[in-house]
Amino acid sequence: MAAYKNLSVEELKELKTKLDAEFEEVKARGLNLDMSRGKPSAEQLNLSMGMMDVLTSDTDLICQEGVDCRNYGVLDGITEAKQLLADMMEVPKQNIIIFGNSSLNVMYDQIARAMTHGVLGSTPWAKLDKVKFLCPVPGYDRHFAITEHFGIEMINVPMTATGPDMDIVEKLVAEDDAIKGIWCVPKYSNPQGITYSDETVRRFARLKPAAKDFRIYWDNAYGIHHLYEDKQDQLIEILEECEKAGNPNLAYKFSSTSKISFPGSGIAAIASSDENLAEIRKQMQVQTIGHDKVNQLRHARFFGDINGMVEHMRKHADILRPKFDAVLETLDRELGGLEIGSWIAPRGGYFISFDSMEGCAKAIVAKAKEAGLVMTGAGATFPYGKDPKDSNIRIAPSYPTLEDLKVAAEIFVLSVKIVSVDKLLGNL
Amino acid sequence: MAAYKNLSVEELKELKTKLDAEFEEVKARGLNLDMSRGKPSAEQLNLSMGMMDVLTSDTDLICQEGVDCRNYGVLDGITEAKQLLADMMEVPKQNIIIFGNSSLNVMYDQIARAMTHGVLGSTPWAKLDKVKFLCPVPGYDRHFAITEHFGIEMINVPMTATGPDMDIVEKLVAEDDAIKGIWCVPKYSNPQGITYSDETVRRFARLKPAAKDFRIYWDNAYGIHHLYEDKQDQLIEILEECEKAGNPNLAYKFSSTSKISFPGSGIAAIASSDENLAEIRKQMQVQTIGHDKVNQLRHARFFGDINGMVEHMRKHADILRPKFDAVLETLDRELGGLEIGSWIAPRGGYFISFDSMEGCAKAIVAKAKEAGLVMTGAGATFPYGKDPKDSNIRIAPSYPTLEDLKVAAEIFVLSVKIVSVDKLLGNL
Repeated sequence: MAAYKNLSVEELKELKTKLDAEFEEVKARGLNLDMSRGKPSAEQLNLSMGMMDVLTSDTDLICQEGVDCRNYGVLDGITEAKQLLADMMEVPKQNIIIFGNSSLNVMYDQIARAMTHGVLGSTPWAKLDKVKFLCPVPGYDRHFAITEHFGIEMINVPMTATGPDMDIVEKLVAEDDAIKGIWCVPKYSNPQGITYSDETVRRFARLKPAAKDFRIYWDNAYGIHHLYEDKQDQLIEILEECEKAGNPNLAYKFSSTSKISFPGSGIAAIASSDENLAEIRKQMQVQTIGHDKVNQLRHARFFGDINGMVEHMRKHADILRPKFDAVLETLDRELGGLEIGSWIAPRGGYFISFDSMEGCAKAIVAKAKEAGLVMTGAGATFPYGKDPKDSNIRIAPSYPTLEDLKVAAEIFVLSVKIVSVDKLLGNL
Repeated sequence: MAAYKNLSVEELKELKTKLDAEFEEVKARGLNLDMSRGKPSAEQLNLSMGMMDVLTSDTDLICQEGVDCRNYGVLDGITEAKQLLADMMEVPKQNIIIFGNSSLNVMYDQIARAMTHGVLGSTPWAKLDKVKFLCPVPGYDRHFAITEHFGIEMINVPMTATGPDMDIVEKLVAEDDAIKGIWCVPKYSNPQGITYSDETVRRFARLKPAAKDFRIYWDNAYGIHHLYEDKQDQLIEILEECEKAGNPNLAYKFSSTSKISFPGSGIAAIASSDENLAEIRKQMQVQTIGHDKVNQLRHARFFGDINGMVEHMRKHADILRPKFDAVLETLDRELGGLEIGSWIAPRGGYFISFDSMEGCAKAIVAKAKEAGLVMTGAGATFPYGKDPKDSNIRIAPSYPTLEDLKVAAEIFVLSVKIVSVDKLLGNL
């Protein structure tokens, strides 16, 4: 089929009539589908059920350092959990702290502490007139929600195929000392599935920020979440690059097992330099007696080591891959050549990012909802929920069954077509 | 034996020689004992081992609202965990939020949020010149550590046999709007084991603080932690009293299962008014996708309901009671009538509070250490670690075996005697 923009008004109207009829048919089915949430499916969750009774006798509960994990003690994580997550995060074991069930909470706490206590002796941000963060867009809404909550001004930085536009990042952080951080999902990024190039990571490590308390908030949420055996992105390790560049304290790296074991019942971690971690431990000591060591041990025993975890991720991939492929196949088949949208086929992560014609995203999401398909709200991938072009839509293929997903994808492309025709006809 | 203060110098010197000899004998045994930490013993932890495999099939993991607890969702706690902890905390189910593994963390977060966002619209505390907290003393060192961490000035308020001195509390909060809170452990208090009287609780509920954002931080850590079947303290419910007094938002109530199931691997909760909880939920939504629901469900299924939990606490009491009795018996037998110290026999909780003669606590703790017995650091029960009278020592009988504990108690009383004689002889 020809690109929509090359169709005459007459042709567009004819097309509209046909698409509307198709849509009415779908709507009449009274469907209830959801492609909005980056949640693993029940089938994926079942992969980790062996974890539920891996610790059953009191002797099972003693960890490597001889501590009874059922009792108080061990502030920053038991040895075996540190080893497992250090290997997963590609950092030395001594440069990691294990937290509770949520890396988002760890990131929140990092910002909260900077607000009240500053960063390695800097002025607490709450005492400054203005604090700003750089936000590569499209990005993760929950990152933006944290900075918004603390009244931090967010500045959009466009993503490119190799990561955030580093010319802009370098320039902004060098000239404005109110800029205290940047949110990054460096591998299989949310929502685009882009992995930062080696050059991008090295430029990050060599940043010369005006603010001494500037940090890179490196949320490596999808570090081992590949979809394919034969096509895997590689990300070079940021902390080592920072160290080499003479900026050892420049980055905080976050991760968790949320999409490896159980979302909300996994374990999270931060990795950083000795100096950064010492500051975090000092505050942690006031905040808690310790995180859930039984759950740490449960994870360590279940996975055994990083090899066990990588093997486990292959099983996740086997479940996820057909779902991603189904959506991508539908997009290719139905929208290929129409020039009414573009998307990236990711090699990992949880999302497919779709860019419609400008000014169409909200209308597409609304249209899909009419037919019983819930999508992530348009705009969610931008700070303040405001997509300046109203074009980005995040597609989350993981949760529905493959059967439902195929129907959902059809509804989505149909919605895209209808709204695009409306747009071209000047009806929007 | 006569009170030490009535002994002549000659008699004291003679006594000293005898006690020193006894001490040398004990020291020669090279013991390694610990009465410093309010930790359950392994025997107590074994009581909850049934929890470790109570959830093993995927259908087990669905909670009352039909949600798969292994996945994201349910911000403020699953229904069955809310019901269980609401019953434990004697509040309606809708007035509770379930958190992660640590009530200390919940308290920390309350203060942290007040620092950056204020309380129900008040000025963020970080923007104020001075913020103060009232601290009933002796009290819990970790409470004091939180307020100290945030630069909040702490004001000592003496404890009485019925709770904090309410004349002082009422006066201070009414006249100083920089006073934003008070730390309370209202039942079987840490370290004295005192339970606030009905009158004290009612006076708390009727406080007229100058600061609109003043809150009572009511850490009911030992609400169901009785030692005896026939002697149990009763505490009236603070939130209901606040409501009755027309101050519905005045108190935050905290609790956890740390000393019911597993310390560090239990579940914590906050209870408060609708308005206070709405504010907390709003912030929680930014901080986390949700706490560990699998662990919530594990607790709910293991205990069944509040009756199961109360029954479970009887088993804890059966283990703890002989330990408390052993320490109290030693104190009575060895120090009774000597007038060199006083203590309270608690009916619950985790501690026995001992008050030496003024200026002796540090020396007693040091003396005990010489003989291989670790006690909680003298001063720890006061803000900034400063006990103005240097007399309070917290005794934690729960963790050692009964056998070790008996030896530890003997070393303790011997240390008290020696230091007291030194004090009376002017040797300190």
